[in-house]
Amino acid sequence: MAAQRLDGRLLAAQLETSMAAAIAAGLAKAGRPPGLAVLRVGDDPASAVYVANKEKACARIGAKSFGSHLPANISQAALELELHELNKNPAVDGILVQLPVPASINDRALLQVLDPNKDADGLHPLNLGRLLRGEVGPRSCTPAGVMALLKQAKLPLEGMRAVVVGRSILVGQPMALMLQQANATVTIAHSRSLNLEGICRDAELLVVAAGKPGLIGANHVSPGAVVVDVGIHRRPEGGLCGDVRFAEVEPLARAITPVPGGVGPMTVTMLLLNTLRMWAQRHALAEPCQGL
Amino acid sequence: MAAQRLDGRLLAAQLETSMAAAIAAGLAKAGRPPGLAVLRVGDDPASAVYVANKEKACARIGAKSFGSHLPANISQAALELELHELNKNPAVDGILVQLPVPASINDRALLQVLDPNKDADGLHPLNLGRLLRGEVGPRSCTPAGVMALLKQAKLPLEGMRAVVVGRSILVGQPMALMLQQANATVTIAHSRSLNLEGICRDAELLVVAAGKPGLIGANHVSPGAVVVDVGIHRRPEGGLCGDVRFAEVEPLARAITPVPGGVGPMTVTMLLLNTLRMWAQRHALAEPCQGL
Repeated sequence: MAAQRLDGRLLAAQLETSMAAAIAAGLAKAGRPPGLAVLRVGDDPASAVYVANKEKACARIGAKSFGSHLPANISQAALELELHELNKNPAVDGILVQLPVPASINDRALLQVLDPNKDADGLHPLNLGRLLRGEVGPRSCTPAGVMALLKQAKLPLEGMRAVVVGRSILVGQPMALMLQQANATVTIAHSRSLNLEGICRDAELLVVAAGKPGLIGANHVSPGAVVVDVGIHRRPEGGLCGDVRFAEVEPLARAITPVPGGVGPMTVTMLLLNTLRMWAQRHALAEPCQGL
Repeated sequence: MAAQRLDGRLLAAQLETSMAAAIAAGLAKAGRPPGLAVLRVGDDPASAVYVANKEKACARIGAKSFGSHLPANISQAALELELHELNKNPAVDGILVQLPVPASINDRALLQVLDPNKDADGLHPLNLGRLLRGEVGPRSCTPAGVMALLKQAKLPLEGMRAVVVGRSILVGQPMALMLQQANATVTIAHSRSLNLEGICRDAELLVVAAGKPGLIGANHVSPGAVVVDVGIHRRPEGGLCGDVRFAEVEPLARAITPVPGGVGPMTVTMLLLNTLRMWAQRHALAEPCQGL
């Protein structure tokens, strides 16, 4: 039997519809739409595409986007000033610094200037601490997107043995915390883990965010496991692939995310949802997409 | 062969000697000793003992303690004001609210009033986020004490399979992060985990912080594992015991912490070390007990 596909494109579209409705419903009371500011520094070509996608998504749901495209040689101080302005701007609910920034910029210091209550990416240390403590706050987008996909598929996480491969701040770490808060028993494996195959085979849920094309194959997956692939890479021969060798793993899995069309589309959606929630909170509106 | 004992009393005494030396060396430049303020609210009898222990430890190393004992019926606002005063007090480097506080007090809100750079316990969300991100900041005392014990015993953590039983904010969660940053492969098990015995038997390092007397026995421990017991409980028949059934587990283990005299004494020591480090940072002194 073929594995269930965890379809991120479909869920993202459904959530966009809900978010558009929440904005339409709240607009009169709030007096303005939610605002997302995306700071782009320098001319990374992939960033240009990502930023454009975020702006288009804002437009689709009726949120306002504030783009700032700053030159690669901008000073740390000037960039921090820009962030301060956005922190103060009452039309802006969420702010995001598109990574990577040029090497001359200290992105950690930059993040500390960002108002944690406008942190659209959920990466400010205070928000990671809130996640750790189970407190309300904007959540890291990619792992929040994975949680939404698992929830949508009604996969019961309670007591499940989950393995997260990769321990980045962007994905692996917050992913592990979110799964744990759903009462899974979570292991984080990483580049220094010994016997990665054996560790992964213990998993009933395997989330792979290693950033290594095709790292995970059939030897890593127990029959019936749920497999979530966060990786996305351009193949030398064209097309995209993930961290999981899909053709090998799919016949074993109970459910699996495709690449593309799995986790990827959910990240922008959760960025919008963080922004919407901060907007709703500022205007004492009901929480949009509650329970996600 | 008997297991190696991880002796917290001995290590705590050694660290106190180092800290006393660091204070003596920095006193002239700093112009004042490190200051630790312990806020105690109400009359929990165990708290009285703990607070007295902290004050005695301060005296032993030459730090100054500022105690405030507030009535159980103090309002949230009055208590927050007290905290604000300590935040502003330039003689205070570390502040600690002794838990538990009376039920009328919202301890989460209280923690948010605390200056994160005076957070002697390392429990402010910002400091947990810093830990998650691998950034400098005061660290949760009990897990930091465990790390110091493991380091002192020269137990190689890199690539080790570690299982932490318990997911509290005080111990389990920060413990898992610290072990992971030492490149262990970490699993957090908890009350909703299925097959706790099997999960624990995978561990080369088992840290038990479940708060359940005698939860862990020989069936949970693989021969040669390192076992760290964070639990401490009063036995109905007198004396203290941990979460681990010591007599059963000790013959199997490669190394083990006794209860009492294992992790317990390290907690106050790490509280002092957090305070000392914040003092040293404020006065641009060398970091005390570097590498711990």
